Amino acid sequence: MRKPVIGVMGPGMEGEATEKDIKNAKKIGELVAKNNWVLLTGGMNTGIMAAVNKAAKESGGLTVGVTSTDDRTRFSEDLDIAIITNMRSGRNYINVLSSDIVIACGMGAGTASEVALAIQAGKQIILLNENKESKAFFNTIGKKQIHITNTPEEAIKIVKKILSIK
Amino acid sequence: MRKPVIGVMGPGMEGEATEKDIKNAKKIGELVAKNNWVLLTGGMNTGIMAAVNKAAKESGGLTVGVTSTDDRTRFSEDLDIAIITNMRSGRNYINVLSSDIVIACGMGAGTASEVALAIQAGKQIILLNENKESKAFFNTIGKKQIHITNTPEEAIKIVKKILSIK
Amino acid sequence: MRKPVIGVMGPGMEGEATEKDIKNAKKIGELVAKNNWVLLTGGMNTGIMAAVNKAAKESGGLTVGVTSTDDRTRFSEDLDIAIITNMRSGRNYINVLSSDIVIACGMGAGTASEVALAIQAGKQIILLNENKESKAFFNTIGKKQIHITNTPEEAIKIVKKILSIK
Amino acid sequence: MRKPVIGVMGPGMEGEATEKDIKNAKKIGELVAKNNWVLLTGGMNTGIMAAVNKAAKESGGLTVGVTSTDDRTRFSEDLDIAIITNMRSGRNYINVLSSDIVIACGMGAGTASEVALAIQAGKQIILLNENKESKAFFNTIGKKQIHITNTPEEAIKIVKKILSIK
Repeated sequence: MRKPVIGVMGPGMEGEATEKDIKNAKKIGELVAKNNWVLLTGGMNTGIMAAVNKAAKESGGLTVGVTSTDDRTRFSEDLDIAIITNMRSGRNYINVLSSDIVIACGMGAGTASEVALAIQAGKQIILLNENKESKAFFNTIGKKQIHITNTPEEAIKIVKKILSIK
Repeated sequence: MRKPVIGVMGPGMEGEATEKDIKNAKKIGELVAKNNWVLLTGGMNTGIMAAVNKAAKESGGLTVGVTSTDDRTRFSEDLDIAIITNMRSGRNYINVLSSDIVIACGMGAGTASEVALAIQAGKQIILLNENKESKAFFNTIGKKQIHITNTPEEAIKIVKKILSIK
Repeated sequence: MRKPVIGVMGPGMEGEATEKDIKNAKKIGELVAKNNWVLLTGGMNTGIMAAVNKAAKESGGLTVGVTSTDDRTRFSEDLDIAIITNMRSGRNYINVLSSDIVIACGMGAGTASEVALAIQAGKQIILLNENKESKAFFNTIGKKQIHITNTPEEAIKIVKKILSIK
Repeated sequence: MRKPVIGVMGPGMEGEATEKDIKNAKKIGELVAKNNWVLLTGGMNTGIMAAVNKAAKESGGLTVGVTSTDDRTRFSEDLDIAIITNMRSGRNYINVLSSDIVIACGMGAGTASEVALAIQAGKQIILLNENKESKAFFNTIGKKQIHITNTPEEAIKIVKKILSIK
């Protein structure tokens, strides 16, 4: 049986991901791996992407990165499989389509585009951050597809619940 | 000299665009055409896209649509040029990259993805809607790139101001 | 009524376009403009793209470029409208989908990909070059969609014939 | 260490893949799996894609499909990981970028576009088919990147040789 693919999205640009976001991403990566799910990210070696991939690999997980460029020196070092698009942020749409469930860890412009595209594609999305404006906004446009939490452990519980319903 | 390209984004799905959004889109289309700017949209025959293209053509404007599909029966009838991507919502990124300035008329998941991608691409964006959650959210992530107004006339004034600075 | 869009594809890399290819491209650009058709190219300031856009503008045509990058310093200076994809050669598919008829002027790897994608998309394609291997190959895979000629004037005649049948 | 990704491309449309192409694809799938390489294809449940994925799974391989659509009923049943682009043939570029080496098994318009894009992207390509026009053409435009053979076993030998040089 095909393993669930959990997409973890979050800021990659310097200064956008907070220390707490990075800490959350590490825990998420560990738990995705331990649950034997496939981890999918934007694949670069910065911010949330780097943190979640590293943690997932350390826990023996399978990591897939859909990269924005073909410059391998900028890829996360912890990718098992790199899907190279050379499409810059155009690949954000592929990230969400390829994920069974999307976890947004932190918030920034790129992450916001992924959450919005995931809503449009009918995906279930878990927002793991403390930004009250983003919670209010995505609740407004995403209705029943948005799940909000403050802890990685709770996020994983929500993933399990959604997977059991599918 | 190359004419400015004004991207007008807004809900295309049934029920997402309000009557006021449609009315605003018509005025925007008229004013874009009268200012001799190129109008760029997602090109389909629904919602804001249909309304703004129709108004621009009636005022003698040049209309470009970057369509999500190759099914011509679903294109706006008022396109001078159809750029066909067959990329579904993946084309949202192309919409914003190709626009000198983005006007978001109304709000929905697709439009939100375009505003977010436009922020990431360094574009100036005008939000023309009354949704307070979207204003608060995009102000948070978009800082100096977001301009907010309630009227089409004011939106066009902001476009002129931005173009004069460039 | 929507104007026909004629896509002119050809080598952009140094040394790939021959002097004859460039000469042919200039004539094609002139004739596309004089027939009041829209010219669509890959939009960059090299090879066939640069030559055909320049000639079309000099004859008063409308030029659309679907560019591979968002670096405006590398765009043809003769574009009326730039559609910016940031997708590198991924944009080749958009080029052919958006063209009513494709003219391949010269041959190289990028051009070959466009001819092949145009065959798959059901387009009519005119090969304007003297490479016997490319003629033999595309005749094999493209059957009734491939038209072969050695002169720009003849290529335009074929375009007219195809447009009159549509 | 990252496992090599071997992209196997070939006709997916009814009637394009010959019986011999299908037989070759099965052997290639088996050998890619037995060498512990990752198999990458276009992911659909037809032609070469279906055959090579089935054989690779039966030999315990890891299979990645970059699909043209989000309609899961049309995916190969033997995919471990589906990367969903919704880009139709626009995904052909992603297929070749993501492959360390490309094997073209049989020939058709889609496959030709992939070989051409792979040449442009600087990849090494193995042509496994008996079509003399395609051999002559790709040799002309692909110079030192094209390797030609008639048997799956020989194709795998060439892959090993290229990987050992890298």
